[in-house]
Amino acid sequence: MSGELRSLMTIEEMERRLSALQQQIKNTGIKVIIVFEGGSATGKGQAISSLILNFDPRGYNVYTTREPEKNEKRKPWLARFAEKMPACGRIAVFDRSWYSGLSQFKGNRKNPAYMAEQLNDITMFERQLTDDGYHIVKFLFQTSKKEQKKLLKKLMSDKDTIWRVNKRDLGYLKHYRSVSAFYRKIIGATDRPRSKWHIVDSTNRKHVKRVVLQTVMDTLEAAVQQAETNAAEPAASLGEPFLNARYSLLPSKPIQEYDLSGEMDRGKYNLRLKELQKELRRLHNVLYAKQIPVVMAFEGNDAAGKGGSIKRVARALDPRGYTVIPVGAPSPEELRHHYLWRFWERLPKTGHIAIFDRTWYGRVLVERVERFTSAYRINQAYNEINEFEYMLYEWGAIVLKFWMVIDKDVQLERFEARQDIPEKRWKITDEDWRNREKWNDYTEAVNDMLRYTNTDFAPWHVIESNCKLSARIKTLAVITDAINSRV
Amino acid sequence: MSGELRSLMTIEEMERRLSALQQQIKNTGIKVIIVFEGGSATGKGQAISSLILNFDPRGYNVYTTREPEKNEKRKPWLARFAEKMPACGRIAVFDRSWYSGLSQFKGNRKNPAYMAEQLNDITMFERQLTDDGYHIVKFLFQTSKKEQKKLLKKLMSDKDTIWRVNKRDLGYLKHYRSVSAFYRKIIGATDRPRSKWHIVDSTNRKHVKRVVLQTVMDTLEAAVQQAETNAAEPAASLGEPFLNARYSLLPSKPIQEYDLSGEMDRGKYNLRLKELQKELRRLHNVLYAKQIPVVMAFEGNDAAGKGGSIKRVARALDPRGYTVIPVGAPSPEELRHHYLWRFWERLPKTGHIAIFDRTWYGRVLVERVERFTSAYRINQAYNEINEFEYMLYEWGAIVLKFWMVIDKDVQLERFEARQDIPEKRWKITDEDWRNREKWNDYTEAVNDMLRYTNTDFAPWHVIESNCKLSARIKTLAVITDAINSRV
Repeated sequence: MSGELRSLMTIEEMERRLSALQQQIKNTGIKVIIVFEGGSATGKGQAISSLILNFDPRGYNVYTTREPEKNEKRKPWLARFAEKMPACGRIAVFDRSWYSGLSQFKGNRKNPAYMAEQLNDITMFERQLTDDGYHIVKFLFQTSKKEQKKLLKKLMSDKDTIWRVNKRDLGYLKHYRSVSAFYRKIIGATDRPRSKWHIVDSTNRKHVKRVVLQTVMDTLEAAVQQAETNAAEPAASLGEPFLNARYSLLPSKPIQEYDLSGEMDRGKYNLRLKELQKELRRLHNVLYAKQIPVVMAFEGNDAAGKGGSIKRVARALDPRGYTVIPVGAPSPEELRHHYLWRFWERLPKTGHIAIFDRTWYGRVLVERVERFTSAYRINQAYNEINEFEYMLYEWGAIVLKFWMVIDKDVQLERFEARQDIPEKRWKITDEDWRNREKWNDYTEAVNDMLRYTNTDFAPWHVIESNCKLSARIKTLAVITDAINSRV
Repeated sequence: MSGELRSLMTIEEMERRLSALQQQIKNTGIKVIIVFEGGSATGKGQAISSLILNFDPRGYNVYTTREPEKNEKRKPWLARFAEKMPACGRIAVFDRSWYSGLSQFKGNRKNPAYMAEQLNDITMFERQLTDDGYHIVKFLFQTSKKEQKKLLKKLMSDKDTIWRVNKRDLGYLKHYRSVSAFYRKIIGATDRPRSKWHIVDSTNRKHVKRVVLQTVMDTLEAAVQQAETNAAEPAASLGEPFLNARYSLLPSKPIQEYDLSGEMDRGKYNLRLKELQKELRRLHNVLYAKQIPVVMAFEGNDAAGKGGSIKRVARALDPRGYTVIPVGAPSPEELRHHYLWRFWERLPKTGHIAIFDRTWYGRVLVERVERFTSAYRINQAYNEINEFEYMLYEWGAIVLKFWMVIDKDVQLERFEARQDIPEKRWKITDEDWRNREKWNDYTEAVNDMLRYTNTDFAPWHVIESNCKLSARIKTLAVITDAINSRV
């Protein structure tokens, strides 16, 4: 259907078409985000209302963005939006969005460097979503200063609606020109072919409804068509990653070249352990007092001793200030989202420590080796992960990534020992044995991971773990050193 | 294992036993809640730490309860705890809990009536959980005034830990006697065989660890034993509900005795609809201004027109202030929780409207007819639901429950019409036809539901719906009347 023909549709025809399209969206698992931005009293609410009435409530959510809550302020600024990204087959409608989040930062318009960082965050965020198949429509509602003034006056003249008008609205009106300029700047920086801005002059409300319905209909129509023609991803082979030149990578050494022969005796271990735990206990208090968040990511060969090391770290921490987050295969609900979604949800608050037992690197390890994900998306993942960690770094987090390495013989010993001890038998599964058969594939994946994600803001710490005791000591030492260099 | 023998176990033996028990908890799907209450500097943190280090992090969560956040204050006071109840196979550890929530209400100790209400909420809440198979252990940590003073002084003397001490802690110390009396009162009112209090004198820290490990071990041991012997629920037949004498039930009329012949012509309908929607639009603003929450529950025969009525209500509302919540079969994750859990999560904030398209009444409708749930638990559900709605009422919500009734002939007409219209075909499934075959079973279930849950604080509104137009008008009129009588 061409654009010209469509414009001849009546409102009622468009409404019916939108209802039908939503069913197709649901059936084909398409993910849609619709953003409404603009000042107060520009008719956003009415437009959203007339749009969503065509949708089956089982298939959409409306989110209203206000000032962040106290606990939201203690997370990376985009986290509260990332958590709300819709699952396959669903539509998320935002009444104000991350763009308002942007302007909610005090003095933001006065600090161009900080604003540039945030605009950069937004373009990364939206690009990650569209790369994952999300469809994004963005509306900016604008009205003349005169019209807006008239509407605000009307709201303020009625005791039932006066509460709708707040100080900020009046401020916007007062600074109409500079606010408009601010929006223009944002739009210029964030308009992309796959997440386009549509500027709506909302003076004529009837016209607004038509424009919104039509634009959403066009987007959904195109999304369904794309899904039906099953537009294939570009072919790709592993190891041609899309890397952002913005990040400096540190050199990395192939994992098989590490010397794993070091040992440590129990006496020295006990002494060092006690010292380091005491220091970490002290630092945990300091981190809380200074509200610095810490994200620890533990990865490594099966049976390399992640659990044992995490336990020694945890023993030094106050349980009110840390969480161990074990990461397994994604649930069906998680699979219907961007793969980073479940990690956004689990980030610590400022002053807290999150210890991930396995992490987002599953994407470029097991998902790559087992071919759960296409080579094309794997190649994008290295950059996506760097961007994700950069946002953590930018937020002020200490990001500590550990790769615990053992050799193949030690793994066999440990597997066999686990099978012999009834209390530890649950720790070893058939899957562990199957993974072992793919040792070389994993080595290759690990080396690519180290090569492409060893950024200067979130470097890898390789922990030689044939000797469990020295591995635990080294891990604790890396942690206390990293925190000490920041507090 | 008898209590005496067990007390001879070493700490290390208990720790190993706890690790093993947690695996059994996980494998048998047992739900465990462990509560730690008591003043600051009584060693709760250390005790929690020494307990959880024995558990696999995949199987537990630690929740720290602080002052409620702004958005938590806009929900029923127990909601933030109800949302955190663990799923089958999991352990939830609370560092302070709903008992602290209780004392966080300003001037609570000075208003005995309000406190009595809240204690009553707590006993209902815990009884609902234990009836659902939850195991609850509650610790109260106490220490002498002298000891507590010493510990607070120590914390305050170190710059790394001084932030841990706040004004409330010092206040507690000052009012040591009255705080102790407050705790004694709470404990007296909430000690139950299946959710027992354990008072821990925390002066001797070594002793504390032993007591906590031992008590938790005993509880888990008993829980596992109970699961293994598969202690059957008492036999029960439907229709012998456990009703709480505290609630007044209004009389109800069998659903088949309603006169469904009324009709309304389109002209009158259009006029009335416009009037009522205008009034509802006005009232929505007032509700927001007065911060009154509204919970609407739509139930009815298949094809009775719930969707159509909801749409007419929604059309009058600002999308920022309402949510339509379609309720289907529970997800696997939801099935691992108390059946009310997913509704606690979806309650509106104050000033907002939640419109449930099907509800918690699924428990006593489809789950009863299809025998998804035992008669014993169904009989408990009527009271559980009344209690749940009472908590909404007590919180200040307007609770509006609609049963939309049509007769069997009209249902057949509508089913057939839906199958003929391509755009509506998704609305009719094989399940609808199967439900229709059980018409009489459903009628019986509906009549029991109306009889046992028609409370004076949340009465049922039966909407005769053979005529869609008059049904919509009656629904809107009930809503506007109910809100008008409150604002």
